[in-house]
Amino acid sequence: MLARLFCWTIASAMAAASPAMAEDGYDLWLRHAKAEGSMPQAIARHATAIMAPGNSATALAARDELVRSLTKIGGVVPALTDAPQEGAIWLATLASAGNLPVKLDGLGQEGYVIRSLTRNGRAMTLIAANSDIGLLYGTYAWLRLAETGASLDRLDVRSAPRVKLRLLNHWDNLDGTVERGYAGQSIWDWWRLPDWKGPRYTDYARANASIGINGTVLNNVNAKSDSLTAPYIAKAAALADVFRPYGIKIYLSVKWTAPMELSGLKTADPMDPQVAAWWKAKANEIYKAIPDFGGFLVKANSEGQPGPQDYKRSHADGANMLAAAVKPHGGIVMWRAFVYAHDNPDDRAKQAYSDFKPLDGQFADNVLVQVKNGAIDFQPREPFHPLFGAMPKTPLMMEFQITKEYLGQSTHLTYLGPLFEETLDADTYAKGKGSTVAKVIDGSLEGHRLTGIAGVANIGVDRDWSGSIFNQADWYAFGRLAWNPDLSAEAIAREWAAQTFSPDPKVVDPVVTMMMGSREAAVDYMTPLGLAHLMGTGHHYGPAPWIADLARPEWNPVYYHKADMRGIGFDRTKTGSNAVAQYAPPVAKMFADPKTTPERDLLWFHHVAWDAKLKSGETLWNSLVHHYDEGVAYVANMQKTWERLRPAVDVERFNQTKAFLGIQYREAKWWRDASLAYFQSIANRPLPSGSLPPEHDLNWYKAQNFPYAPGHP
Amino acid sequence: MLARLFCWTIASAMAAASPAMAEDGYDLWLRHAKAEGSMPQAIARHATAIMAPGNSATALAARDELVRSLTKIGGVVPALTDAPQEGAIWLATLASAGNLPVKLDGLGQEGYVIRSLTRNGRAMTLIAANSDIGLLYGTYAWLRLAETGASLDRLDVRSAPRVKLRLLNHWDNLDGTVERGYAGQSIWDWWRLPDWKGPRYTDYARANASIGINGTVLNNVNAKSDSLTAPYIAKAAALADVFRPYGIKIYLSVKWTAPMELSGLKTADPMDPQVAAWWKAKANEIYKAIPDFGGFLVKANSEGQPGPQDYKRSHADGANMLAAAVKPHGGIVMWRAFVYAHDNPDDRAKQAYSDFKPLDGQFADNVLVQVKNGAIDFQPREPFHPLFGAMPKTPLMMEFQITKEYLGQSTHLTYLGPLFEETLDADTYAKGKGSTVAKVIDGSLEGHRLTGIAGVANIGVDRDWSGSIFNQADWYAFGRLAWNPDLSAEAIAREWAAQTFSPDPKVVDPVVTMMMGSREAAVDYMTPLGLAHLMGTGHHYGPAPWIADLARPEWNPVYYHKADMRGIGFDRTKTGSNAVAQYAPPVAKMFADPKTTPERDLLWFHHVAWDAKLKSGETLWNSLVHHYDEGVAYVANMQKTWERLRPAVDVERFNQTKAFLGIQYREAKWWRDASLAYFQSIANRPLPSGSLPPEHDLNWYKAQNFPYAPGHP
Repeated sequence: MLARLFCWTIASAMAAASPAMAEDGYDLWLRHAKAEGSMPQAIARHATAIMAPGNSATALAARDELVRSLTKIGGVVPALTDAPQEGAIWLATLASAGNLPVKLDGLGQEGYVIRSLTRNGRAMTLIAANSDIGLLYGTYAWLRLAETGASLDRLDVRSAPRVKLRLLNHWDNLDGTVERGYAGQSIWDWWRLPDWKGPRYTDYARANASIGINGTVLNNVNAKSDSLTAPYIAKAAALADVFRPYGIKIYLSVKWTAPMELSGLKTADPMDPQVAAWWKAKANEIYKAIPDFGGFLVKANSEGQPGPQDYKRSHADGANMLAAAVKPHGGIVMWRAFVYAHDNPDDRAKQAYSDFKPLDGQFADNVLVQVKNGAIDFQPREPFHPLFGAMPKTPLMMEFQITKEYLGQSTHLTYLGPLFEETLDADTYAKGKGSTVAKVIDGSLEGHRLTGIAGVANIGVDRDWSGSIFNQADWYAFGRLAWNPDLSAEAIAREWAAQTFSPDPKVVDPVVTMMMGSREAAVDYMTPLGLAHLMGTGHHYGPAPWIADLARPEWNPVYYHKADMRGIGFDRTKTGSNAVAQYAPPVAKMFADPKTTPERDLLWFHHVAWDAKLKSGETLWNSLVHHYDEGVAYVANMQKTWERLRPAVDVERFNQTKAFLGIQYREAKWWRDASLAYFQSIANRPLPSGSLPPEHDLNWYKAQNFPYAPGHP
Repeated sequence: MLARLFCWTIASAMAAASPAMAEDGYDLWLRHAKAEGSMPQAIARHATAIMAPGNSATALAARDELVRSLTKIGGVVPALTDAPQEGAIWLATLASAGNLPVKLDGLGQEGYVIRSLTRNGRAMTLIAANSDIGLLYGTYAWLRLAETGASLDRLDVRSAPRVKLRLLNHWDNLDGTVERGYAGQSIWDWWRLPDWKGPRYTDYARANASIGINGTVLNNVNAKSDSLTAPYIAKAAALADVFRPYGIKIYLSVKWTAPMELSGLKTADPMDPQVAAWWKAKANEIYKAIPDFGGFLVKANSEGQPGPQDYKRSHADGANMLAAAVKPHGGIVMWRAFVYAHDNPDDRAKQAYSDFKPLDGQFADNVLVQVKNGAIDFQPREPFHPLFGAMPKTPLMMEFQITKEYLGQSTHLTYLGPLFEETLDADTYAKGKGSTVAKVIDGSLEGHRLTGIAGVANIGVDRDWSGSIFNQADWYAFGRLAWNPDLSAEAIAREWAAQTFSPDPKVVDPVVTMMMGSREAAVDYMTPLGLAHLMGTGHHYGPAPWIADLARPEWNPVYYHKADMRGIGFDRTKTGSNAVAQYAPPVAKMFADPKTTPERDLLWFHHVAWDAKLKSGETLWNSLVHHYDEGVAYVANMQKTWERLRPAVDVERFNQTKAFLGIQYREAKWWRDASLAYFQSIANRPLPSGSLPPEHDLNWYKAQNFPYAPGHP
């Protein structure tokens, strides 16, 4: 008897360990775990049947997603019905239903309504939209409500995306590597496309549709011309076919000199009629294969990439020539503002503004200028980019980085929601108080209808897609904020945690607490108080604030921190580079004075004496040390919190996160110790009492070497 | 009602499509599909309970594998018991059971017995062995019998491995790429080891143990010194810990100049005492971390790798120095014989023999010389390597290539079982008739106790491990033949198909038929009649028999086919390179005469006139064309067979194979057309009637270019 009991224990353990059943993270936030407690009944009562008259591929995707999810959540398969039924979900467009008891105006082609109503005496839930893709989005929204434990009795939700283009940018190379990818190789199996379209493509589309992402740039902005050859267009078209039912358009990054490389043209001058004709013909060729192709993304005259400036033409000249090629097909061009020049001695942080601000008004109406959140490069913290608000006649597209090039790569738990939120909520004062970056991006500040937001994807072939379970939250948060930039990072974290682990507050609360402080902790243990760009060369992995020997000055950490005997920080006021003058006057004024500059941005804008007193009364030096200490301590706390969650999380995901928190703790301490060993050698001050000395001496940290660090092709 | 019925259909479809349930190939031949018909009852009757007193990690692995498998096969969880019970499986060693009703002598540490017997009046199945790893092998053997539909009533099986070292060689680089890998990146996540040990490592060990593989060389023979640094030793140790319960030892490839690169030694001369001391210390360091470390694999003085010859020392000098370093720990050295030199004008096929034959008797007793199956390089067909049988005093280890560098890479269905079998069954005549390669390898011909066989792995992070479902069969066949070189490729294919798809003969028969002719088809459409090495430069992917401009003569296809106006083929008789003289006299005599040379090897050994008559009465030219035609036709037939299997195979695996067969057909035709376009330009003869002209002209084929072909780092 004992043996038999034992056997059942073993068997459950086995079942949990068996590959097919493993919680390996592949299902993302669409895990649809069997609901516990009263939830399955509550959900089942509102999903007794599905009335879904549409039969487009998109409508079927919505219906199938409901069937699949509800089956998994409740273990009961909802019936399909064509007549109203108590507890049914009714998916309807005007086209499929004739008329509807809700108004759909203002929802556009992507918005939806979810309304609890009674029809022929039967209580039902209507999901309605102007188009089938709106129904799909509404379906995912209803599932999100259901799985996060919302009451489903009296729903009255109206939602439409605030931003038109909600895109992932894949920095994926045609050879399968991913620049700044920490989740394995590219999920695009270019070699076996278009013949072989594995199921992962569909699951990618499902995941993106579930959070409202409606476009994807397939290839790296450091593009190869080959992606525009006929075989690669056919491969892209095969992906477009998979993605289409899920409302996802595809886009391509293009290399400026493609006409020369592919067709032997003598020039890539945008004013050369042959060049323009080449791009027009290429656009026609692409649209023949992919009628709903989205358009081009361009990195030009940036970090060695060719561009129109090579021919003494402006970025606008270049963008407009491409824009004319795709315009007849309804396509757009996204032109990146991430530029800085080796022969420009000016503050790197100023160069994009200097190049682009004068071009405002010169771009064609199907061009967006894509601007990174900050003026340097996806640092743990940067003040918002001064271009936001500064180009009122040009739609500016946000470029966030979801992949954590500078924030712990695949292993550190550093939830990016707060970073995204901080930037979107920042006030540019471009049209007075309340001129937030979000309003620039969603077009409401300056009346643009063409609007966009891009996130550099953190997706690879790793089974968990994003390199870790918690990195999935960044993908999720990006999509949710792209739909509605006013959502709070915390609310999004709660949604994600509930769907990913369990809606039980005993799980959600501590998980969200861990997440919400994690990015600030990374700032603290990497680059506190406005420091930036202190990482190792090339791989951007560990600390190396001492590096001073790279060819271009602005590649060296010492360029950024400018630590000397007196103090530390980059003077961007009038006495320095005067980058502050690129902001609107109220912002410029705030950043010009160390007293009004938020302490979190202090050393970004000011060179501050080591002994200067901060608001806390501490000296800068002591505060710097304490920030480093706090960053490390936060990680130690996350380890404790996670350990307490052991009973509530499946073994596999528990172990992965535990292992990664262990790595994070070691590396946080390494960042702190290496940075302090270096800064102390310059500041020449003792550590405040209670702060431990670095584990090794400075030379030990300098000798560290990582020849096989990922993400650096 | 109709709607409800419909709903169930949808739901089943959904369930099938859901990621967690998908037949994505991850489970390999350990899929343990729910058995159909009377099978579950038949199996359940012989597995009512498990009596498994052992409690080592290996014994638990055996018990857990039974529980997991039986649960999946029959849906019923077998009980664990400690007393004999009707229908129980009894796993026992002398140590765990005290005494046993079977004799275990002759089984060694890895063999097993499976015996149906009655104990205390109860019919049971005993799986017994001298060690726990033998129990694990016996467990997998019993499961294989059960799942292939064998009668389980009167089992009496004794089995012990014929070859001692049964190893995979991973050509995996520390940056995650895999040389000649076509199944995605390396499964070794070096960057996150030793902290993070994902479940895939365990599943890898299970899969290997299930077919008797007992060792794995983790890194590429083109090795980096870094794999011998402390951090990488710790990472390797973490993997060793995962593999140990499954009987799998780890080995490392080493770079000859590691003492210079890692420790600044001035030389890597094997006779230098400092060098020998360095390796001794390094071996001690490794064994401290991995007490059961297997040993070293070495590619030296081969294709640009450094080696002892750089110091005017022999391969034996080098191997023996390393062997002395690992000898105190029981380790071994595998020294590859794959050598050819850019400054050696002799026939490349002769060089390994010329270098190594004179060294016979000079190697230390813990050295094996690892020899590829043929004298060139894993071609679709090669005669057996002349070293087999030629070094009686030296244990020769076979090196097969499981990854299909030259046989269609990830997409072509070309089952390698017949290739392996053909080589193992080849008769060297070293000690008269019956001196097969298999007897050289298993040591029986020359009385060696240290024996080995290696397969270059076809494993990567692709969900299906091997790049395609059918490529899994090559991994499986390698393991099974390594255990018992006398198994037939067809019997192995039957086992594999039954476990992978279904034991139903309606599935197994056509699948096995497809498989068994597929390698010959690849020979026909790529390199018929003894041709070899006609592929494109670098990536080794498509046809390029015209290439004549590479720096080293033996890199060029024209070096191998030597086609001219008169005829085609490499004269390796006395009038040519006289490579035939490297074989034992009866074999040499057979190969010296085109009339006695098997037609399949004809052009390997002879330059034959285009109009020479073959046995069939056809001219060589016409026969060549017909072979190409037959190869393509075979693929077309596989497509038809597979289409007929649609109802019997799950959607996902059906679709993958269908897509790949489509690629294979296109590429088979391309190989045929490109090869014939080229050879016809030299032979200047018409195609025989009924043979279609190539689709394009020769220049079209020459212009094909594959910059992103996988597997070529």
